[in-house]
Amino acid sequence: MAAKQKVLLLGATGETGSSILNGLQESGNFEVEILVRPASVKKPSVQKLHEQGLKIWSIDLDDSSELVSAMTGVDILISAIGPNDLLQQTKLLKAAKLANVKRLIPCAFTTVAPPKGAMLLRDEKEEVYNAIKFLGIPYTVIDVGFWYQISFPTLPSGKVDYAQMLPLNTIHGDGTAPNILTDLRDIGRFVARIVLDDRTINKYVYTCGEVLSENEIYHITEEISGEKLEPIRVSNEDIEASVDRAKAALAEDPHDHMKRTGIFIAQYEHSKYVREDNSPGYASYLGYLSARELYPDFQPITFRDFFAEVLAGKGRKVYS
Amino acid sequence: MAAKQKVLLLGATGETGSSILNGLQESGNFEVEILVRPASVKKPSVQKLHEQGLKIWSIDLDDSSELVSAMTGVDILISAIGPNDLLQQTKLLKAAKLANVKRLIPCAFTTVAPPKGAMLLRDEKEEVYNAIKFLGIPYTVIDVGFWYQISFPTLPSGKVDYAQMLPLNTIHGDGTAPNILTDLRDIGRFVARIVLDDRTINKYVYTCGEVLSENEIYHITEEISGEKLEPIRVSNEDIEASVDRAKAALAEDPHDHMKRTGIFIAQYEHSKYVREDNSPGYASYLGYLSARELYPDFQPITFRDFFAEVLAGKGRKVYS
Repeated sequence: MAAKQKVLLLGATGETGSSILNGLQESGNFEVEILVRPASVKKPSVQKLHEQGLKIWSIDLDDSSELVSAMTGVDILISAIGPNDLLQQTKLLKAAKLANVKRLIPCAFTTVAPPKGAMLLRDEKEEVYNAIKFLGIPYTVIDVGFWYQISFPTLPSGKVDYAQMLPLNTIHGDGTAPNILTDLRDIGRFVARIVLDDRTINKYVYTCGEVLSENEIYHITEEISGEKLEPIRVSNEDIEASVDRAKAALAEDPHDHMKRTGIFIAQYEHSKYVREDNSPGYASYLGYLSARELYPDFQPITFRDFFAEVLAGKGRKVYS
Repeated sequence: MAAKQKVLLLGATGETGSSILNGLQESGNFEVEILVRPASVKKPSVQKLHEQGLKIWSIDLDDSSELVSAMTGVDILISAIGPNDLLQQTKLLKAAKLANVKRLIPCAFTTVAPPKGAMLLRDEKEEVYNAIKFLGIPYTVIDVGFWYQISFPTLPSGKVDYAQMLPLNTIHGDGTAPNILTDLRDIGRFVARIVLDDRTINKYVYTCGEVLSENEIYHITEEISGEKLEPIRVSNEDIEASVDRAKAALAEDPHDHMKRTGIFIAQYEHSKYVREDNSPGYASYLGYLSARELYPDFQPITFRDFFAEVLAGKGRKVYS
């Protein structure tokens, strides 16, 4: 690759966006600029990027002419916008088309799931993908499965509590559902390869560190920690009841972010463990390419290595 | 192929369904059975199929256990249901899943267009495709572009009037939009190949006799007929105004079949000539495989041969 590709990144300070920014910078193949909404420009995390010398575009997403300016000359537009602002992305599309952006990476970065009807989060992403296809903008959808960082169980000793967003001590169903998992830190490394790859244009791709069931995760963590875990068994009926409760709560107040988060969590569990969507087989059925097959030399972080780091006190609590 | 594949065909007496039935029978690779709704079983067209020795299943689409019986042992379920009953197909899906149908061909058989927002007809098909993906049923979407049979202009001499569903004397925009066209009679021949092909499982495929612009169609028909045509020019603004009028009419009575047909026609024109969706480039962008590339030995009927037949009095008016 002779010239560096120019990337405009929205959502650079979120968990996924930070990983993407790191991955792009690490690869050395990109010139990255950052798009933020005016409400975010004063945030310390954005200021920090500014201090690193990154160009920051602070633009109201309703200001199409400013968006076109920011996108002019951009090769790749990447959106890692938050889960409550997904539909805002449609405001970017006309500008991306006018500015002739060569590839758009909408905010996917989630588990593999059916396009409609299983997860509200995925349903909203589908609306964005359809709007992209309506305009004919070149795109790549990149999903990542679930993160290692929110998939490891709590230990009786309390040794890994510091790195957990929420305690985790459950096994769903019989614990055998296979799940695509990626270390959050590997997302950006995968993205840096995928967005330069002609084979992934107008395609869906999933990244993967490992495919593991909950039983396998518990087995590995017991083995590494030497501690005995006693998971609580959650039945499929319990999961379905959680989804129903979350839906009822959201129906009362459809824009409440906490209630949306509630339904996201319940539907993730349903999709992952009852439907078993987040698996290589279903990804293949849906037409996804596998990033591991595309890049056989890529050495992702293993779950075992990840958990050993956390146990050694070198983990980090996400969203903190 | 040793054993014949068992096909259950819904909509066998429609224009598309008849072509499919012919194509399947001609290939000799299939054992075909027919699914009709009870309201249709007494139709002469259905009786004719019965007299040919075809097994006819007359089943209410709400009767899931009967549907499962009809689908048991079926390798390929093909739906060529009419444009006003598309959503009825969702009633087939659970039975197809339970009966372990190996491949479902939902009613696509239309032009290439974006999944949402450009054509009501396509939007409803998308709902069916999403329901199929939700259940994880193996499928193939087969689109065919527009038919030769409704794409040739009226001649001043009146010689081809007998074969026209509607008079046609317009050219849209500058007449250069490329359009995927297939002879109606070739649809079934393509389908007979596509449904046996492992490369097309869980994929979108488009058939094509020729890709022609309106200018090219007029040129060919003038050349073959020796008549001079004076097409009326329709601007993009006129087409957009037609869509708006058709939408307003449908809004008054959303279930009126004539008004639905009105919007289908207006949106076909908009999609084909203003958006230029029904083209190999956009099909490729949307991830379609080309049946012509899959089957290079397939010799489709050319538009020139088709029109010469019509001019020689050997055409047939569709939907008559």
